[in-house]
Amino acid sequence: MQLPSTLLENAVAQFSKLPGIGKKTALRLVLHLLKQDVDEVQLFGETIAKMRRDSRFCQRCHNISDGDICAICANSARNQKVICVVENIRDVIAIESTQQFNGTYHVLGGIISPLDGIGPDQLSIESLVNRIEAESVEELVFALSPNIQGDTTIYYIQKKMAHLSCRVTTIARGIAFGGELEYADEMTLARSIANRLPVQQYVK
Amino acid sequence: MQLPSTLLENAVAQFSKLPGIGKKTALRLVLHLLKQDVDEVQLFGETIAKMRRDSRFCQRCHNISDGDICAICANSARNQKVICVVENIRDVIAIESTQQFNGTYHVLGGIISPLDGIGPDQLSIESLVNRIEAESVEELVFALSPNIQGDTTIYYIQKKMAHLSCRVTTIARGIAFGGELEYADEMTLARSIANRLPVQQYVK
Repeated sequence: MQLPSTLLENAVAQFSKLPGIGKKTALRLVLHLLKQDVDEVQLFGETIAKMRRDSRFCQRCHNISDGDICAICANSARNQKVICVVENIRDVIAIESTQQFNGTYHVLGGIISPLDGIGPDQLSIESLVNRIEAESVEELVFALSPNIQGDTTIYYIQKKMAHLSCRVTTIARGIAFGGELEYADEMTLARSIANRLPVQQYVK
Repeated sequence: MQLPSTLLENAVAQFSKLPGIGKKTALRLVLHLLKQDVDEVQLFGETIAKMRRDSRFCQRCHNISDGDICAICANSARNQKVICVVENIRDVIAIESTQQFNGTYHVLGGIISPLDGIGPDQLSIESLVNRIEAESVEELVFALSPNIQGDTTIYYIQKKMAHLSCRVTTIARGIAFGGELEYADEMTLARSIANRLPVQQYVK
């Protein structure tokens, strides 16, 4: 695809770098912006650049934050003795939108995956263990991906905190709401039978 | 969806304004950019803003251009006596990528569509008619959308240039390559039969 202008070409190249956006979609987005006001597109560019430049991460839980400590960590109404361990910021947003969790978070920044070259040192595991010790945390809730890497990460962290008395739980695995039994994979179905709940508890 | 940072929220809001990008996709893109280098994201923002600020349109054919006259209009190897009339820049790019057209273009900026509030005055029709007259153009090839608005636009332009002797053609409508006859709509099939070609001409 030959583009008639270098400026257009550069803009399309920039959009094409984003995940899930190919050259055709990028062109559609750029031509859309071309029809907008100059000021509006200026604001678009500045907002994105500013977001990256000025974004900070909570020193305690590594969540994205406007200040040194994020709003969740700074909120005294939340149970600071319960930490939910997640891979990334998107997981925090997903769990927050359920409004079912009143504790705090710890963003690992990934999970242990030797094949992708991600070892424990690249993750914020040490700061998590220090935090559990310093703040005498009562419960650690793992909300990691249900795969071998996630399980490895849980195992590793548990070994690191073996000397600490802190309850360790993981979010429930099972058949999703609206999911069809016959299409569920064997592993999920097997676990959901093994970890079956009394009906009273389920409808609570 | 509650986001943990105002900077993040603003960036997501900006991306959500783009066509076909919802809040979840916008968040995915923003979190991707958050992981990139500050300089790279700065460049992203600047490239987009610069594209809008510095982009110019060819004074002759209204195509996007780096200068006053676009590369196609300035190219003396192209037949300047043949003009292909298209709705927008994307159509120019699509036709250019076929490498089958050696004339020039005229970008109308849309088609006549009273329901959307687009009348002939919002389109570059006057400059097209002037151009046909001034440059004694020999052929006008309409490559507009095959719908009632496209036909209206063709009809309107033809009336405007009734006093000029210029051959008027339109790109062929018919069954697309790879298209199945049984799934073609009646209108397309009917036209493709009415406008059937001698086989010699078809395989030329």
